[in-house]
Amino acid sequence: MSKHVVVREIARAESAIIDKLGEHGVATVHEAQGRSGLLAHYLRPIYPRAAVAGSAVTVLVPPGDNWMIHVAVEVCRPGDVLVVAPSSPCSDGYFGDLLATSLKARGVRALVIDAGVRDVAALTDMQFPVWSKCVCAQGTIKASLGSVNVPVICASQRVEPGDVVVADDDGVVIVPRAAAFRVAEAAAKRVASEEDKRRRLASGELGLDMYRMREQLAALGLEYQ
Amino acid sequence: MSKHVVVREIARAESAIIDKLGEHGVATVHEAQGRSGLLAHYLRPIYPRAAVAGSAVTVLVPPGDNWMIHVAVEVCRPGDVLVVAPSSPCSDGYFGDLLATSLKARGVRALVIDAGVRDVAALTDMQFPVWSKCVCAQGTIKASLGSVNVPVICASQRVEPGDVVVADDDGVVIVPRAAAFRVAEAAAKRVASEEDKRRRLASGELGLDMYRMREQLAALGLEYQ
Amino acid sequence: MSKHVVVREIARAESAIIDKLGEHGVATVHEAQGRSGLLAHYLRPIYPRAAVAGSAVTVLVPPGDNWMIHVAVEVCRPGDVLVVAPSSPCSDGYFGDLLATSLKARGVRALVIDAGVRDVAALTDMQFPVWSKCVCAQGTIKASLGSVNVPVICASQRVEPGDVVVADDDGVVIVPRAAAFRVAEAAAKRVASEEDKRRRLASGELGLDMYRMREQLAALGLEYQ
Amino acid sequence: MSKHVVVREIARAESAIIDKLGEHGVATVHEAQGRSGLLAHYLRPIYPRAAVAGSAVTVLVPPGDNWMIHVAVEVCRPGDVLVVAPSSPCSDGYFGDLLATSLKARGVRALVIDAGVRDVAALTDMQFPVWSKCVCAQGTIKASLGSVNVPVICASQRVEPGDVVVADDDGVVIVPRAAAFRVAEAAAKRVASEEDKRRRLASGELGLDMYRMREQLAALGLEYQ
Amino acid sequence: MSKHVVVREIARAESAIIDKLGEHGVATVHEAQGRSGLLAHYLRPIYPRAAVAGSAVTVLVPPGDNWMIHVAVEVCRPGDVLVVAPSSPCSDGYFGDLLATSLKARGVRALVIDAGVRDVAALTDMQFPVWSKCVCAQGTIKASLGSVNVPVICASQRVEPGDVVVADDDGVVIVPRAAAFRVAEAAAKRVASEEDKRRRLASGELGLDMYRMREQLAALGLEYQ
Amino acid sequence: MSKHVVVREIARAESAIIDKLGEHGVATVHEAQGRSGLLAHYLRPIYPRAAVAGSAVTVLVPPGDNWMIHVAVEVCRPGDVLVVAPSSPCSDGYFGDLLATSLKARGVRALVIDAGVRDVAALTDMQFPVWSKCVCAQGTIKASLGSVNVPVICASQRVEPGDVVVADDDGVVIVPRAAAFRVAEAAAKRVASEEDKRRRLASGELGLDMYRMREQLAALGLEYQ
Repeated sequence: MSKHVVVREIARAESAIIDKLGEHGVATVHEAQGRSGLLAHYLRPIYPRAAVAGSAVTVLVPPGDNWMIHVAVEVCRPGDVLVVAPSSPCSDGYFGDLLATSLKARGVRALVIDAGVRDVAALTDMQFPVWSKCVCAQGTIKASLGSVNVPVICASQRVEPGDVVVADDDGVVIVPRAAAFRVAEAAAKRVASEEDKRRRLASGELGLDMYRMREQLAALGLEYQ
Repeated sequence: MSKHVVVREIARAESAIIDKLGEHGVATVHEAQGRSGLLAHYLRPIYPRAAVAGSAVTVLVPPGDNWMIHVAVEVCRPGDVLVVAPSSPCSDGYFGDLLATSLKARGVRALVIDAGVRDVAALTDMQFPVWSKCVCAQGTIKASLGSVNVPVICASQRVEPGDVVVADDDGVVIVPRAAAFRVAEAAAKRVASEEDKRRRLASGELGLDMYRMREQLAALGLEYQ
Repeated sequence: MSKHVVVREIARAESAIIDKLGEHGVATVHEAQGRSGLLAHYLRPIYPRAAVAGSAVTVLVPPGDNWMIHVAVEVCRPGDVLVVAPSSPCSDGYFGDLLATSLKARGVRALVIDAGVRDVAALTDMQFPVWSKCVCAQGTIKASLGSVNVPVICASQRVEPGDVVVADDDGVVIVPRAAAFRVAEAAAKRVASEEDKRRRLASGELGLDMYRMREQLAALGLEYQ
Repeated sequence: MSKHVVVREIARAESAIIDKLGEHGVATVHEAQGRSGLLAHYLRPIYPRAAVAGSAVTVLVPPGDNWMIHVAVEVCRPGDVLVVAPSSPCSDGYFGDLLATSLKARGVRALVIDAGVRDVAALTDMQFPVWSKCVCAQGTIKASLGSVNVPVICASQRVEPGDVVVADDDGVVIVPRAAAFRVAEAAAKRVASEEDKRRRLASGELGLDMYRMREQLAALGLEYQ
Repeated sequence: MSKHVVVREIARAESAIIDKLGEHGVATVHEAQGRSGLLAHYLRPIYPRAAVAGSAVTVLVPPGDNWMIHVAVEVCRPGDVLVVAPSSPCSDGYFGDLLATSLKARGVRALVIDAGVRDVAALTDMQFPVWSKCVCAQGTIKASLGSVNVPVICASQRVEPGDVVVADDDGVVIVPRAAAFRVAEAAAKRVASEEDKRRRLASGELGLDMYRMREQLAALGLEYQ
Repeated sequence: MSKHVVVREIARAESAIIDKLGEHGVATVHEAQGRSGLLAHYLRPIYPRAAVAGSAVTVLVPPGDNWMIHVAVEVCRPGDVLVVAPSSPCSDGYFGDLLATSLKARGVRALVIDAGVRDVAALTDMQFPVWSKCVCAQGTIKASLGSVNVPVICASQRVEPGDVVVADDDGVVIVPRAAAFRVAEAAAKRVASEEDKRRRLASGELGLDMYRMREQLAALGLEYQ
């Protein structure tokens, strides 16, 4: 069996860059880093209009056992996002309002979990956002170990501790810590260029013309009738 | 083929106890009765923030045929929750605003159905809550019999007529009628103990300390780095 | 390989009839045309309470490639609904706020897509309704052709260009253009008859009596206990 | 939390009746008892042409923990079928060739499990049949308790200890112990009547004529063109 | 409600062409007609190595009701393939060995059904091939009408009566009757050209060279390291 | 957009160690490396009893586009296993008998693909094993780039070029190249210890006694009745 470890100290990206990534949002950031890093789309927010960015504190948990989430709280810092991945697929409700209270007290911004969550009415009331696979009241036990701040696969995506997590109504995307600055720059450029496009499209200009697509389409053989 | 029966009179739990269970909510009640009785988490409310508790009137329906729901209306009483299970998996919309109008007129509090529902905008407007497998406009016929107030399997859970149904944003849980008082007591205790925990966690105390977990974790070999 | 074509001109139903169908809503229209034409129920609106009707402009797209949506914009007219079907199953986010801006500028009322959509917060803000298989930030490319205004299979339903699309919280139903008048008439009758039923049910009358079901149920052998 | 119990002694149906039910097979038995008792069809045999019947020894297991299967072995008798249900959905491989060796040594005929199984090549070689939700090499731990020989919900069906389990290429059906004799009789009658039908259909006689359906179809309005 | 009809006489493709399409197999035919006509891949054969082609006799059935399959038998001719589509999604076992006996007596070659099938051991013994959504012993009733030989949507594909059905281990593809000759020709050409390619690839020649891909890849910017 | 690269040279594990891992099989290897590295269980072999081990050559492909598989052939060596992951979920049939012929000519042992495969009858005849998400005849195009021999996420597992792939009827597990020797040792020990256990269990000894579980079970409160 693998060793179970808790890594206390992890490197994080600069908070200003993290916040910039959060402003740009998931779709833009995903494009800006070359369409990689997206978590599987079955992860959905428990309430609409939540949008966050933060540093990943990763938690590997056994199926049906949330003990390591309790362990992870201690190593979280303000601005973090907890990223929880079970070692085999599980839909149990690993997380509820007590854990959210504890995380909120430490300044944690959100939970991303490839499993279930419960107490969603209370979580909505306290505005603690969660992206999860499902809502499920099935509780978990505290009997077996996992690890904190090791690389995990969460919803088909590898997440390393300290990676930047960006989450909104479109889902969740991971930006590797080392790429955060570069991706934030690329996202900013993308947003700037979209402003102009949006204005032109709103005025009725066609994408076909704006992007000069007509010739390529004809060359590939598109036929108008 | 099995006989098709309608049982007119069923025993119900005391309404004061039912209401207490409703106040505690699904996650707490599920814990309080030893993590049993939860319906499969794919049953979701058609609008957020609905929360009810009531006595189960059970309906076994053929696939694509909602005739027995019409039959069931007559045996419902104020405070009941209709629990509908198809005899084989079906996603059709068995239920809409006309049936809801009829049930509401009899004081029925909600519908729980392991199939589809339609007219959800109207149901939301009239605030008749439904927990269903899906929203689906596909209508049903009235050609074949089923049964009312027999034990059914609904969303992977056995439900007996008169069992207490508790439903909220976290899903649906069934409390056997005979256990209702005991579970309500246990739930109340659980809620009381959580109040204190919530306050301590909110003030920044760690669950690791509050639950005295550090020694056990060390004993199992958890390693900090 | 099939030819890739764009059909510029299509026949549409009369706008007054389209609007009538929209008023009746999906469940009623679906019943009124003999329970046919419903798209698979996994297509869901990205925000609640949207309700539209319009003429289908159909788009056949390759997996992961949204180029043809850009092409389709040009042939849309006010009152249209874009219906997008991938040639093989795909969950990518083919559509976001830039395309919505462009469609809105041309008076298009909604998008129905058997794939993913993104920028859903922005789409909600601009009140451009979308019925989709999922929300997914995964972007698409512009490299391969498809077709516009050819018959497509979208969410298990055949859609021809110019068919009437009705969509609301209950899902999406297609009315063949040639049947639009007849179905609107049938739907109007249905709605009228339901008014009276709703009133009687609200006053406590039983469906069993109103629909005179008791004899048939007895004849089939239903047994009361 | 519920108490964890092992019930050592359970009542079983007569072995002659169990074997008769096994000869008739799942589809026939399911019909003969009024189309009830079928486990969800996602339970599939790990190799074709296995067919067994036996007495259910039921096991309730936590997610990802197979300890109670080890406990259950001791209370099994020749002719039993182990029926394993997790307390929340799980796809882990709870069972492999070592447990099969142990069960085979005690005369157990098969495993039915609403979860995963592994070592399927070895299980095929030793001809120990398994009906499972999936094949999955993900192992389980031995850390938490469950129960043996309590009623369980397995693949959407309630199973009581001592019920008769019939399984073949068509799936798995449960016959309540008390109904075993009656169902076996009904199944035998059904089989007898099918023999004649099969012969007549093979000779080209139409079901329409043999079952005298033409008049009913016409009465319901079926139109030939 | 739609009218329920049985169309007795349908046009069929020439049997020599049908047999040619069958020899080429699903993948080749699908390519030869421009990658259209494929049924959803969840339709799987009940035993390996079955391969057939025939003329579609289509059956539209209500959920959980197989009466119309009995009706359809009469209009089948030698060389036909029955194509059954439920009017809303259903996994019941609509078909078993008695119906197969009847179809076989009329020379029907196979069943394609977007629902469940049972008696699969017997069907395998009698070598009557079936492509289905699942195996499920859940029986159906005979209470409601559908139609025979009307266009249906089966597994996300439109099928018209008399279309050519080609099915093998790769799935099921539909060739419109009017296109059968042309597609058979195109498939034959494709097969001929593949023979040479197969030989060259087997001898170690690279597809990169054989298809002259290197330049295009370089032009698109593929970088070798 | 990310750069598209082909890495020609990768480090591989020693072939003797790879073969040892293959002999031990997926379940044993998975246990031996601490229950990590398993690909999602929905990857299934296209025919039973295939079992291979080899070095991963990884391929990242766009949805519906198999061009990069053609590119990958050239960098494969005898003993390799091709591991193909689409950049967003796709079920198309990326691979058929022509590509298999080409890979076989280069000594490649198998394909693992998180998407569809076709020509499965031919692949079975030529005994080229494939583990895939599904069988699907839907073809792919050759229009867009991906990468070869970069780290990929395949079926929820990260795979690096040169990692050891072990696949059999139980699924697919990845052993990091650097861990191959250590895991092979651990697997060998495990197999040796299982031999003795298997013999004792076959003779009727109980796991409860052999693993000395009775005391722990009693300590946790298991109650016998």
